[in-house]
Amino acid sequence: MATTSNQHTNNRSARLARAAALCDGGKICPPERTTQLLEAVIEPGDRVAIEGDNQKQADWLATALANADPARLHDLHMVQSVLALPDHLAVFERGIANRLDFSFAGPQSRKLAELVERGALTIGAIHTYLELYARLLVDLPPRVALVVADKADRDGNLYTGPNTEDTPTIVEATAFRGGIVVAQVNEIVDRLPRVDIPGGWVDVVIPTPKPYAIEPLFTRDPAKIREDKILMAMMAIAAVYEPYEIRRLNHGIGYATAAIELILPTFAAARGLKGKVATHFVLNPHPTLIPAIEAGFVESVMCFGSELGMERYVAEHADIFPVGADGNLRSNRALAQVAGQYACDLFIGATLQIDALGNSSTATKGRIAGFGGAPNMGADARGRRHTSPAWLRAGRDGGDTLRGRKLVVQMVETRQPDGTPSFVERLDAFDLAESAGFALPPVMIYGDDVTHVITEVGVANLLLCRSPAEREGALRAIAGNTDFGRAQSPETTSDLRARKIVMLPSDLGIDPSTATRALLSAQSIGDLVTSSSGLYTPPAKFLRTRAA
Amino acid sequence: MATTSNQHTNNRSARLARAAALCDGGKICPPERTTQLLEAVIEPGDRVAIEGDNQKQADWLATALANADPARLHDLHMVQSVLALPDHLAVFERGIANRLDFSFAGPQSRKLAELVERGALTIGAIHTYLELYARLLVDLPPRVALVVADKADRDGNLYTGPNTEDTPTIVEATAFRGGIVVAQVNEIVDRLPRVDIPGGWVDVVIPTPKPYAIEPLFTRDPAKIREDKILMAMMAIAAVYEPYEIRRLNHGIGYATAAIELILPTFAAARGLKGKVATHFVLNPHPTLIPAIEAGFVESVMCFGSELGMERYVAEHADIFPVGADGNLRSNRALAQVAGQYACDLFIGATLQIDALGNSSTATKGRIAGFGGAPNMGADARGRRHTSPAWLRAGRDGGDTLRGRKLVVQMVETRQPDGTPSFVERLDAFDLAESAGFALPPVMIYGDDVTHVITEVGVANLLLCRSPAEREGALRAIAGNTDFGRAQSPETTSDLRARKIVMLPSDLGIDPSTATRALLSAQSIGDLVTSSSGLYTPPAKFLRTRAA
Repeated sequence: MATTSNQHTNNRSARLARAAALCDGGKICPPERTTQLLEAVIEPGDRVAIEGDNQKQADWLATALANADPARLHDLHMVQSVLALPDHLAVFERGIANRLDFSFAGPQSRKLAELVERGALTIGAIHTYLELYARLLVDLPPRVALVVADKADRDGNLYTGPNTEDTPTIVEATAFRGGIVVAQVNEIVDRLPRVDIPGGWVDVVIPTPKPYAIEPLFTRDPAKIREDKILMAMMAIAAVYEPYEIRRLNHGIGYATAAIELILPTFAAARGLKGKVATHFVLNPHPTLIPAIEAGFVESVMCFGSELGMERYVAEHADIFPVGADGNLRSNRALAQVAGQYACDLFIGATLQIDALGNSSTATKGRIAGFGGAPNMGADARGRRHTSPAWLRAGRDGGDTLRGRKLVVQMVETRQPDGTPSFVERLDAFDLAESAGFALPPVMIYGDDVTHVITEVGVANLLLCRSPAEREGALRAIAGNTDFGRAQSPETTSDLRARKIVMLPSDLGIDPSTATRALLSAQSIGDLVTSSSGLYTPPAKFLRTRAA
Repeated sequence: MATTSNQHTNNRSARLARAAALCDGGKICPPERTTQLLEAVIEPGDRVAIEGDNQKQADWLATALANADPARLHDLHMVQSVLALPDHLAVFERGIANRLDFSFAGPQSRKLAELVERGALTIGAIHTYLELYARLLVDLPPRVALVVADKADRDGNLYTGPNTEDTPTIVEATAFRGGIVVAQVNEIVDRLPRVDIPGGWVDVVIPTPKPYAIEPLFTRDPAKIREDKILMAMMAIAAVYEPYEIRRLNHGIGYATAAIELILPTFAAARGLKGKVATHFVLNPHPTLIPAIEAGFVESVMCFGSELGMERYVAEHADIFPVGADGNLRSNRALAQVAGQYACDLFIGATLQIDALGNSSTATKGRIAGFGGAPNMGADARGRRHTSPAWLRAGRDGGDTLRGRKLVVQMVETRQPDGTPSFVERLDAFDLAESAGFALPPVMIYGDDVTHVITEVGVANLLLCRSPAEREGALRAIAGNTDFGRAQSPETTSDLRARKIVMLPSDLGIDPSTATRALLSAQSIGDLVTSSSGLYTPPAKFLRTRAA
């Protein structure tokens, strides 16, 4: 085996020697030589990790790889969290890569399905983020990692800025398996504000002519929050946050959870819940969290990534967010996923479809999208052993005397904006699985992990159901004026209401006519800026919305 | 809130100013001033993380803290993975600390129970490792972290050597929450072999007069493996590894799993399983893994920590282990726990007691021990979405058509070495919970997460059971000549055998007379050294055992 180990080491040395010929005598490679550099350090058949995060993208490196000569680079196996850019698919179209393991392909999901159908690539598996990191560390170690950071020094030390995201995990999985780490950076400086990745873990640094691409995915404009979302948010607080005493939690993205964030300082405060619920978040720095932070509702936020425009606000709130001695956010998606899974008592998010078993999914036919981190958050963490009031009560409600349970809440309006019913007898995910040849349908949150479903009609507490028929009845009771909802007799619904399995607004002491936009502690992006004392600087596209 | 943020920052500055008065003008504090330093940077009521890993210990800092003046330092809230040293309890006995959140207290479990009984401290919660890290990041951030590394340079950069373990996670949770990081190191050098923790994350470094304490917890002497363990190991391979095609896996510690490691090159190889099972481990570098590595069975090992004596062997096998450009192992407990949870298809470990529901525990009355990482590994990871043949088959066997399942195997002899039956009608954990006032009994692995139980009598495949009565019958069938086992009629056992829910050795084609020590690819520690070509250097205490 010693020979194999030597071959391993020698191969790394040979690659580095080829890279050195293109660098400046140190670790810096001029940007115009990027494709040459990749052709020098990557070999045919290599497993290559390209940093496609949820937010920031190693776009320069993605383009350079897509421009490589397929005669020199071919049969690559790409491993990446997110497929976000056209160049992430161009490598398959051009015959440079033919295998893919990934987590999320939202923006490229239709094109990806087409390429798979054409046989341009084989998908190894679709993972949650944590699973993909796990496999990078176990059986999918990259031979070459192409990552992205804000700044580097000449020793290769990297400063990621607020959007640290996946970088440390990808680099660790590569650098300690004899792989090569190539980083694109916006600039080279003499002295970094802080070191996020030690230079010894990085082999080549490429300063790019323009800053890397990054998307503000977690900004929700309060102006777009409709009243049914506000009613659902009120019910979430009254039916879940308050009785279960939810302090540690994770919110999905979407307008319903944004509404919850915005009514903490009004509706929740009026119920005397300040300091009692929603004190510790695992969440990106959502702008809609600003009013709750300013109201003193929030004690801390652990972040997966950052959010464009929130940099100064976060930096001025080092008591709330993870901020380094340099004064800027340090996020970390792998650790935040662990925090969301094991330190949070509740996950609440939105979906597109729910079936009679409570299985929910955002998957639709003709798209191969994946779910990113939601399944990891939206599952009972059965390895958990520490107790909390919320976890213990959820266990008891579920009839378990030996263990607690995570609260997993799905919020969905009975109909989607286009009128399509959200409750269905059969998820589209089943059709997708059949057409794409998946072994299992891509269910985002499994019904047996969901504890509550909230629609504009009411709340179903699935923990209290003792049979599949009761669960189905509870879901039909809140499905409103849809075929799914009408399939149930009013008597069944009354019975479930009497047993508090189904709760309508009146059962929770909520008058639906009070669910107005007046409850929102910010009505617009401009109000969020004001609430932040001007520290929040929204990206231009949200200001255009405001003017509209 | 800006004021609060400023107070936060100012408090850190004040602490650092007090520390500076005791340092050498930079970050280095002389060891004789350690207690003074801790009294300067810690304030009463602080939450303090002391690095008590599974293996290495920040022992110098633990002693210095225990020697602090309780008039100056009191009401501390200790957060630490492992309570291993008497000084970890001395802080409670001396009135310096009064609150504890932890994961494992094996060596100090009896004393801890006594101190809790006396009211010397309150336990916040007992966590798995990942849960504790998660809470450090969310609601238990340390104001001061006391960590340990091999070497530091004058900028505070740390080199952890092979036993990186928890250090990066504790430091990240502290440094990015405005906390103070103090590191003890064996030596200060001008140039580190590699940087494991950037110096910007570390505030004070203390070189100690002697190296930190570290225990070889994962070394099992092949000479001590008895034949019933070998029979159980053969059954594990024939009943689980082979039919489920287990490639990615995690082994607990103990002689039964050591036996599996040692018969891979003999029993498993003879069945044609090389390259087909047990190729990717998440495991510390167990010395008993050496023959399987040398036989080419193992493709990679991701490590939580290291193991004393394995340093050179690991360094020479960079194709198998995570090794840095400096040539030494980089372990990482947080990431390895993630890998074990999400990339492994199987966890197999040992226990002391199993009840009729399949719940198992090592907890006994009068001791508060915790379980470290086992519950995290020994649970179905319900957030998992990627498929593998093992995971899919386990799901199908369990009757689930929508999701796969992790294989969780418990190995236990029907009686403990002292003759006590291992199968019981009621776990001691229930008595412990009552006497200690826990909200729930400390179950290590829950019955509904266990898929297989293996004794020297046979294998129970709980996946195939369709009722609690069947599960109980399957367990009684393999409980041998104990009250628990005799409570079952031979007809029930025959019926379960016919349905392959219970498998005796003969059902697996195994002749128990072939379960001899001759199957072990190493008979002794000396054989492991030979197998390693002399690269493995066992600690002296194991060589004494060999001579005995």
